[in-house]
Amino acid sequence: MREVYLDNSATTKVSEKAAKKATEMMEKIFGNPSSLHQKGFEAQKEVEKAKEIIAKEIGADTDEIYFTSGGTEANNLAILGAVNAMRRKGNKIVTSAIEHSSVYETCRYLESTGIQVVYLKSDITGRISKNQILSAIDEKTILVTMMMVNNEIGSILPVDQIRNCIEQKKSPAIFHVDAVQAFGKIPVKVSKLKADLISASAHKVHAPKGCGFLYKSKNTRIAPIFFGGEQQGKVRPGTEAASLIAAFGEAVSEFNLSENYGKVSNLRDYLMEELGKIEGVTINSSRDGIPYVVNFSTGKVKAETMLNFLSSKGIYVSGGSACAKGKKSRVLKNIGLLDEKITSSIRVSFSKYNSKQDIDDLIKYLKEGLSSFSGSN
Amino acid sequence: MREVYLDNSATTKVSEKAAKKATEMMEKIFGNPSSLHQKGFEAQKEVEKAKEIIAKEIGADTDEIYFTSGGTEANNLAILGAVNAMRRKGNKIVTSAIEHSSVYETCRYLESTGIQVVYLKSDITGRISKNQILSAIDEKTILVTMMMVNNEIGSILPVDQIRNCIEQKKSPAIFHVDAVQAFGKIPVKVSKLKADLISASAHKVHAPKGCGFLYKSKNTRIAPIFFGGEQQGKVRPGTEAASLIAAFGEAVSEFNLSENYGKVSNLRDYLMEELGKIEGVTINSSRDGIPYVVNFSTGKVKAETMLNFLSSKGIYVSGGSACAKGKKSRVLKNIGLLDEKITSSIRVSFSKYNSKQDIDDLIKYLKEGLSSFSGSN
Repeated sequence: MREVYLDNSATTKVSEKAAKKATEMMEKIFGNPSSLHQKGFEAQKEVEKAKEIIAKEIGADTDEIYFTSGGTEANNLAILGAVNAMRRKGNKIVTSAIEHSSVYETCRYLESTGIQVVYLKSDITGRISKNQILSAIDEKTILVTMMMVNNEIGSILPVDQIRNCIEQKKSPAIFHVDAVQAFGKIPVKVSKLKADLISASAHKVHAPKGCGFLYKSKNTRIAPIFFGGEQQGKVRPGTEAASLIAAFGEAVSEFNLSENYGKVSNLRDYLMEELGKIEGVTINSSRDGIPYVVNFSTGKVKAETMLNFLSSKGIYVSGGSACAKGKKSRVLKNIGLLDEKITSSIRVSFSKYNSKQDIDDLIKYLKEGLSSFSGSN
Repeated sequence: MREVYLDNSATTKVSEKAAKKATEMMEKIFGNPSSLHQKGFEAQKEVEKAKEIIAKEIGADTDEIYFTSGGTEANNLAILGAVNAMRRKGNKIVTSAIEHSSVYETCRYLESTGIQVVYLKSDITGRISKNQILSAIDEKTILVTMMMVNNEIGSILPVDQIRNCIEQKKSPAIFHVDAVQAFGKIPVKVSKLKADLISASAHKVHAPKGCGFLYKSKNTRIAPIFFGGEQQGKVRPGTEAASLIAAFGEAVSEFNLSENYGKVSNLRDYLMEELGKIEGVTINSSRDGIPYVVNFSTGKVKAETMLNFLSSKGIYVSGGSACAKGKKSRVLKNIGLLDEKITSSIRVSFSKYNSKQDIDDLIKYLKEGLSSFSGSN
């Protein structure tokens, strides 16, 4: 059976070079990066090399990159860290209603500790306007946290306008961008975003699971969320996951944003065209979103049923965020989709490894599934 | 140059089987364990398999194992999680003065939030008595957290007496054991320890860095330290680091505690014998500690100088905890060692891969170093 992996927003295949680097680290360069001997120095050198590659990619200094266990930890460190460092200056967070759960649930927790959180509503394709952000920020706002690209429908949020809003409102806010779904797909640049904190994940960009980074500008102070040794300036203690970090660096060194963007745009256009020919299918993603994500609803067949059927044919897509483990999507609800569309929604997410043939296979079995299961909903 | 790795308390070489498993996960079983399709199920199955191996090793149920990014996070989750869940019941923690920094610094942080922490002093070989623990626990104690084996001198702490102390004092305390340096070396069993929480690290037992686990008994409630998706019952959200977790399981399935203990005991005895013949060398570790760690002081040559020299000869040992990155050891200070002994202390830590030849090489170059640098201190 030909396998078609179209769930790249959930996770990606580790690239050959990245896997090879991780294996080399495990087998040969296995020292503790903090150890004061050759075995430690070798490992530390690999960590530094990865840090340089990543810093260069986003236009940061190497000492502004902190490795974490992934996007969830990076987002938590950013948000909890910023709020705990800023509590004396105000009590308000501005964010959106369509953030990933690692941002949303962290904000919900902070609400329970007395922080006021404004969750900006998006339009039905997941867009938020600069004016909404500007209106929400005030002098009591201590954090603005927003995703650059939405993980479920692929909308692009105006994060490059936020610094200007903060300045206009003379707000003391720390500004955090969750770039987990943007990094490796569109340029994520410190100079353009003017963010204080930027988070990203390794396993979304063809590196292994269990690693991510938080960019923290030199002038930004945050409180750590856990405590321990002297690693990473105590902002994020714990032995660095050297094999993952080195593999992450390797994967980032393989980035080819514009070529892949062009290729994936063609796949997106083709998929949308083909979906448009199927009766009853409606596309939830907007064309001005990122081409890597196409969310659509069949209207007729429950997502679980369709996912299951497609999986049996070797076609791997998702019904929303993998992290929700099948729970009904908060994001799709918050953009205002009707229930019937939410429960029948499918997310296709591309990587550089996908081809036109993948879409042909998907469409073939999607049609087969629709004719088998329609009415049996 | 023959390399001799004797810094296994800092980190260990990943075993062949564990590295192979991690590589297989990265290359083939790369799905997100939460994804609702075949690629996800395959990854989830590997995570479950690792959980079963680990649960069986410590005598727990599989749903009592929570994977973390390592020992530091596991210790933080245990301590912060327990205290945040128990704040209404009291305000006191009982621990020791020789804990790893991931416990010690977390307790220090909690002191700054109004928690009272009792740091029990050990004797000069790192031992603590049951009576000390019993005297410290009271009805206001909400957490007792103690390491099973000390990472710098290898002393074994009486953690198997703590449940009894808590019961005797009718304390509501949650009981946490930091088993990072014990797991894989001596039996760590839920039935014997009667602990509510037990933490361990993968990279100390021939699995990769970036992974650890927290055992949490079914009846124990702790607050999470970060927030996000539905993974791991929300106790520890974030996409599971499936390649590391599967490799961790593989490494644990290779445990052979008694055979390795015997082998390493012979190495320890031989090393102590040989060290005893060198003028001025004093041994800081006690024979009733774990054989895997031998801490000694040359008295004459600063640890940094000696480490550097030994490293140039391919001999890798440490001057204390790697996590301290060369800072003066709090543990050795707190057990009451004289300054001269602390600054000249060397930690040798064994694994199953070491041999008598390794000790011969160490002793040879140690002697060479002592004669080269003595007096130049």
